Amino acid sequence: MTNGVTMIESSAPVPFYRQVGDEAEVFRAAARRGSPVLLKGPTGCGKTRFVEAMAHELGRELITVAGHEDMTSADLVGRFLLKGGETVWVDGPLTRAVRTGGICYLDEIVEARQDTTVVIHPLADHRRELPIDRLGATLKAAPGFQLVISYNPGYQSVLKSIKESTRQRFIAIELGFPPPAVETEIVAHEAGVDVDTARTLVTIGDAIRNIDGSPLREASSTRMLILAGGLVAEGLSLRRAVQSAIVEALTDDHDIIRALGELVDALLPRP
Amino acid sequence: MTNGVTMIESSAPVPFYRQVGDEAEVFRAAARRGSPVLLKGPTGCGKTRFVEAMAHELGRELITVAGHEDMTSADLVGRFLLKGGETVWVDGPLTRAVRTGGICYLDEIVEARQDTTVVIHPLADHRRELPIDRLGATLKAAPGFQLVISYNPGYQSVLKSIKESTRQRFIAIELGFPPPAVETEIVAHEAGVDVDTARTLVTIGDAIRNIDGSPLREASSTRMLILAGGLVAEGLSLRRAVQSAIVEALTDDHDIIRALGELVDALLPRP
Amino acid sequence: MTNGVTMIESSAPVPFYRQVGDEAEVFRAAARRGSPVLLKGPTGCGKTRFVEAMAHELGRELITVAGHEDMTSADLVGRFLLKGGETVWVDGPLTRAVRTGGICYLDEIVEARQDTTVVIHPLADHRRELPIDRLGATLKAAPGFQLVISYNPGYQSVLKSIKESTRQRFIAIELGFPPPAVETEIVAHEAGVDVDTARTLVTIGDAIRNIDGSPLREASSTRMLILAGGLVAEGLSLRRAVQSAIVEALTDDHDIIRALGELVDALLPRP
Amino acid sequence: MTNGVTMIESSAPVPFYRQVGDEAEVFRAAARRGSPVLLKGPTGCGKTRFVEAMAHELGRELITVAGHEDMTSADLVGRFLLKGGETVWVDGPLTRAVRTGGICYLDEIVEARQDTTVVIHPLADHRRELPIDRLGATLKAAPGFQLVISYNPGYQSVLKSIKESTRQRFIAIELGFPPPAVETEIVAHEAGVDVDTARTLVTIGDAIRNIDGSPLREASSTRMLILAGGLVAEGLSLRRAVQSAIVEALTDDHDIIRALGELVDALLPRP
Amino acid sequence: MTNGVTMIESSAPVPFYRQVGDEAEVFRAAARRGSPVLLKGPTGCGKTRFVEAMAHELGRELITVAGHEDMTSADLVGRFLLKGGETVWVDGPLTRAVRTGGICYLDEIVEARQDTTVVIHPLADHRRELPIDRLGATLKAAPGFQLVISYNPGYQSVLKSIKESTRQRFIAIELGFPPPAVETEIVAHEAGVDVDTARTLVTIGDAIRNIDGSPLREASSTRMLILAGGLVAEGLSLRRAVQSAIVEALTDDHDIIRALGELVDALLPRP
Amino acid sequence: MTNGVTMIESSAPVPFYRQVGDEAEVFRAAARRGSPVLLKGPTGCGKTRFVEAMAHELGRELITVAGHEDMTSADLVGRFLLKGGETVWVDGPLTRAVRTGGICYLDEIVEARQDTTVVIHPLADHRRELPIDRLGATLKAAPGFQLVISYNPGYQSVLKSIKESTRQRFIAIELGFPPPAVETEIVAHEAGVDVDTARTLVTIGDAIRNIDGSPLREASSTRMLILAGGLVAEGLSLRRAVQSAIVEALTDDHDIIRALGELVDALLPRP
Repeated sequence: MTNGVTMIESSAPVPFYRQVGDEAEVFRAAARRGSPVLLKGPTGCGKTRFVEAMAHELGRELITVAGHEDMTSADLVGRFLLKGGETVWVDGPLTRAVRTGGICYLDEIVEARQDTTVVIHPLADHRRELPIDRLGATLKAAPGFQLVISYNPGYQSVLKSIKESTRQRFIAIELGFPPPAVETEIVAHEAGVDVDTARTLVTIGDAIRNIDGSPLREASSTRMLILAGGLVAEGLSLRRAVQSAIVEALTDDHDIIRALGELVDALLPRP
Repeated sequence: MTNGVTMIESSAPVPFYRQVGDEAEVFRAAARRGSPVLLKGPTGCGKTRFVEAMAHELGRELITVAGHEDMTSADLVGRFLLKGGETVWVDGPLTRAVRTGGICYLDEIVEARQDTTVVIHPLADHRRELPIDRLGATLKAAPGFQLVISYNPGYQSVLKSIKESTRQRFIAIELGFPPPAVETEIVAHEAGVDVDTARTLVTIGDAIRNIDGSPLREASSTRMLILAGGLVAEGLSLRRAVQSAIVEALTDDHDIIRALGELVDALLPRP
Repeated sequence: MTNGVTMIESSAPVPFYRQVGDEAEVFRAAARRGSPVLLKGPTGCGKTRFVEAMAHELGRELITVAGHEDMTSADLVGRFLLKGGETVWVDGPLTRAVRTGGICYLDEIVEARQDTTVVIHPLADHRRELPIDRLGATLKAAPGFQLVISYNPGYQSVLKSIKESTRQRFIAIELGFPPPAVETEIVAHEAGVDVDTARTLVTIGDAIRNIDGSPLREASSTRMLILAGGLVAEGLSLRRAVQSAIVEALTDDHDIIRALGELVDALLPRP
Repeated sequence: MTNGVTMIESSAPVPFYRQVGDEAEVFRAAARRGSPVLLKGPTGCGKTRFVEAMAHELGRELITVAGHEDMTSADLVGRFLLKGGETVWVDGPLTRAVRTGGICYLDEIVEARQDTTVVIHPLADHRRELPIDRLGATLKAAPGFQLVISYNPGYQSVLKSIKESTRQRFIAIELGFPPPAVETEIVAHEAGVDVDTARTLVTIGDAIRNIDGSPLREASSTRMLILAGGLVAEGLSLRRAVQSAIVEALTDDHDIIRALGELVDALLPRP
Repeated sequence: MTNGVTMIESSAPVPFYRQVGDEAEVFRAAARRGSPVLLKGPTGCGKTRFVEAMAHELGRELITVAGHEDMTSADLVGRFLLKGGETVWVDGPLTRAVRTGGICYLDEIVEARQDTTVVIHPLADHRRELPIDRLGATLKAAPGFQLVISYNPGYQSVLKSIKESTRQRFIAIELGFPPPAVETEIVAHEAGVDVDTARTLVTIGDAIRNIDGSPLREASSTRMLILAGGLVAEGLSLRRAVQSAIVEALTDDHDIIRALGELVDALLPRP
Repeated sequence: MTNGVTMIESSAPVPFYRQVGDEAEVFRAAARRGSPVLLKGPTGCGKTRFVEAMAHELGRELITVAGHEDMTSADLVGRFLLKGGETVWVDGPLTRAVRTGGICYLDEIVEARQDTTVVIHPLADHRRELPIDRLGATLKAAPGFQLVISYNPGYQSVLKSIKESTRQRFIAIELGFPPPAVETEIVAHEAGVDVDTARTLVTIGDAIRNIDGSPLREASSTRMLILAGGLVAEGLSLRRAVQSAIVEALTDDHDIIRALGELVDALLPRP
């Protein structure tokens, strides 16, 4: 089994992130305090990039874990594995971060079952410790250890939500899509297209986000604009790129696809 | 357990595929970019053939996995097996594609549980890596690796749908049934019948697809026309072949079977 | 665990089967083509006998598997078993048929979970192969291999139905109860009773099948008529035999039992 | 795990059973034919005793298995167990009966899941064989082997019922409570009380069974009358014995307990 | 896993139990007969104490098992455990009682799944035997073995109830709260308080039990009165003791807590 | 697997706890008696701190276990683990407390399944023993052992509630948020801010708790006020700290966030 765990070495290049509000100040204050952080915001708005940038600035290892329905507490903490006739304990990603003083980023943790989230409680309050029953040991978190969890409030439901007793242990930071000028800079840089193309893509993305009473479950994210830009960089027309990376990716409903297509046509530059 | 995984050697004969729109251009652009692709379209319209053709053209190994309700992330990534008293790691199909730089085609991935799809997230964005917790390792995808997933929008439901956070990482391409001339060529070639027979089958298939307010859950697909053609090639009458390979296969409702039969009778050539 | 798998040696005596329509011609054409066959029809109408007869005629081994809710793909494909300290791979019935080129008959497959049916997809189209992940191997089906699945359309429901993407890979053949003359011959032969007794039983069975707005979930099948005949051959009166093998077996409702009893009384020969 | 399996040696004393109708004739005819039997009737009416008596008369071993929700096919067929470092196959009760030619009595089989009942299909038709996938073997049932299943039609529900395709393989026999004279003889014999006491108990039992629009889920069974008789034989008053073994056992509703008590009082002999 | 199994040595001191009606006579008659007993009554009324007292009087070992939702038949019967590389059979509590002729008391058995209760059927009728499939053995119950089960009729629901076919094998005895004089004696003895304090507690308990249309799910039990008495014996005021051990323990609803408090205030002795 | 088990050595510094009512007197009386205690109160009001303080005062080890949906009785009692080819029994946290005479604090036990709570029954009444089936042993609790369970009545639901038969074995103590003066002292001490800042935070927290018909699921807890104070101590403005640690942590609803923000603005000191 894998948890979608990713480790970023501090020797990696500086992650490309553009600050929008005071999110970095709040994160730094929480980090100095060792307080856990809860990131809220829509899919593809840059939550992961923000954590990568903060980890880089603070010189901490970042261990990312993608939450899912079947994640168990053992997926976070570790388990005994049979290796060559021996049972060997293998640390999970949370335990590794606790030992090394890194940042453990639990992405979309709301997807996991509650037994998985309860395991972080003693790490998320004044105790800062991780009891590992199977080892008969309780680990004190190394200095620098910090928990970060994220979720998309638009996905919250009665069935899937963070327990209040979990949530109130965290400093909450809300992120949104960046303002047009910043988003244009990001799209141009990440997709490798000129600023004009990037600006057109941002204009289209913004227009879709601002549709009154939109029937879409999600809006066009920064990530989608970058994907569309990438297709343009590979030689597709802007119209075709937007169709595949944004319109068809957002919905399967043919009526909505047609309406979005007309919206896009109206925003494309006249040749 | 098996996942319906199929590997196609690049030494296989050229797959028979006839392009309909600009689907190949978009696929090639995404492939150059390493961007993952989402294929949408009805059952039996040729999605699998399209991927086979693209893999052949690009000179990449194609590894196909059929999604199902009970598929776990281990079915994709791999697991430890006991062999001769030893525990041996066996790569799953996704891991094989990541190592060798092939195309991993996840067919009807919407059937799988979400923990199975979450595992592809770090492979489907700028990271292009596959963390394997059990091995304590993170694999960088080899150049050429590409993810392709497919599904049938007609099957989508509230319970079974691709997560928005998965979907928006993909370039979406919609496929439909080919136009009559192309479909006639395909049926004649695949079933081994003459063009007249193929044309009659395509006319019947088209008529069924265009029934107003059709009570059928699925329409007569290209695959069904080929199956009917095959029965004709084996000596059955056209009427009997259509009855078994199309009409009876589409429905169990006796009233609909009768109505479809009358529609077919009206379209058969007068002897 | 067992799957109700039955193998019929080709050395067995010729199965007793009487053809009703052109079902054998269609089956033979599909067999020459290697196309999979879907048998539809009510319980006890002779689907199993038909497949036994075709397998005998074609000189192929028949491997029958009874579908059920808890059947897994491993039940079809095989699994590793611990034998004397060794892990040994044991082929499942589907794999045995794939290796030896036999007919694999999946009876009431609609009962199985969908992951079990998805496993037959690559065997049911042009690929004709069975990938076995656990062995890291993909088996090409031996010549002669053919898939046959059956189900009773009367049992279909929203929850339990064959996936459209499975169904449209099959040549569909519908079977019903045989006409009176044929059914009389079958009952006399199988139960070991004289033709008059058999004819009376067939008359009773037919009358029950043709009750207007019947409250019964299933009609009196050929199999039931044979069971009743068997009791007569053992010395019970015709009335008592029909009561136990047909009336009481069809329902527990005392009002319906009484009504069926009156119907039977009216059809019994006057002594 | 245990299945409530009970074996009765043929050397046991003659089971005490009093025939009511022609149930024994039908059973004997089915036994000569090797046809499986389905016993229907209320709890405690003597179904188990009837099978015990028939097994004794026919000189066959009787193996009884009590069905329950979690019964698996392995509980019937057998499994590999680890014994002293060796894996040893242990026959389940059904397999033992198949090998030795005994009667396998599946009590309240409707409680079991359908995969458990499907396993008996090839044993319940002309094939009379038990495929054991795990052993890679198919057992032919020894002469004398017979399947008997029982259930209480009053418990049938949409969720729990015997599949039609299972049910129609059986000869059905309905049993009820015996007529008063026979039941009095049974109660006197089994409880060890005089005939007058037994007759009073039977009168009480009958009165409860015949309450118009009874709110009770089950009626007072022969088994309950015997239990009450036993308490009388141990020195309790008839009134107290009926209260504990019948009234309080039938219901927890205080109003119904009071009403039943008044009914009982009216039927007790005046001292 | 543990089942809350408790064994009471016959050398333990005489359990403190005060008889209320003729419950001991009925129990003794059933014990002489070997008939199983079903105890009905509210939580905390003394069911466990009653069985302890009877076991002591009869000189039998008492083995108590607390039923719960996840209890399996193996929890009662036993299982193979790995000990030092050997598989060793470990008797469950039911099997121990069967071997030694003790009383097996299944407390709140209605909580267990039905497969757990079905296992006691052959022990609860004339057969008095326990088949242990895994051992391939059937144990005859030693003389003195007796089954006792208990439940609280107030908890019965459609989902959780004793199967009729289980229930009708038992002699039923209903227990209630003892009359005031007896209950006062019990509270004084068990809590170690003077008779006046005990009488006040019993008066309060009685008043709460007799509230018209009480919104409480359970009434104040004898056990609660003893707990309150215990706090008084430790120096708390009677008011505070009743608040913690009775009022706050009965409900979380602040309105009901206030109303119960007023009721208690009115019943406390004037200082 | 881990259970969030935390052990506090008695050598730890005195926990910071300020008594509000007579909760300590009741706890001490229950402790002298060995009676189990049930703590009720909202999340973050100081239940854990209260138990830590009582354990310290009584000189007992405190073992804390966080309840969750998937907790099993083995998580509390212990299990056999494979270590270096040997099976070794490892005590669970409950068993450790039973052996050493410590306080076992089951936090939010209402989250666990009922089989987990049933296991504490014999420890929670006069028996004070823990039967461990797997060891074939019954442990008598060491002197000093005490069970404490907690839950938040606001979370109670029909599906998740403590069984009445569990609940009535406990002395219940209700805790609430401390009065303003005490809460101000706590916030200043724990967050390391001056009294004025702490008082403002308490005023804000109180105002949010007292909103008429509040749409919030939980109120601003003492814990949240401390987190906000911590951000102020790290240099953030009071307004920003309250926004992240209280407002954004309490809700995702933008309208409520705005309303709470206005409430906070009105309560901040004018500069």
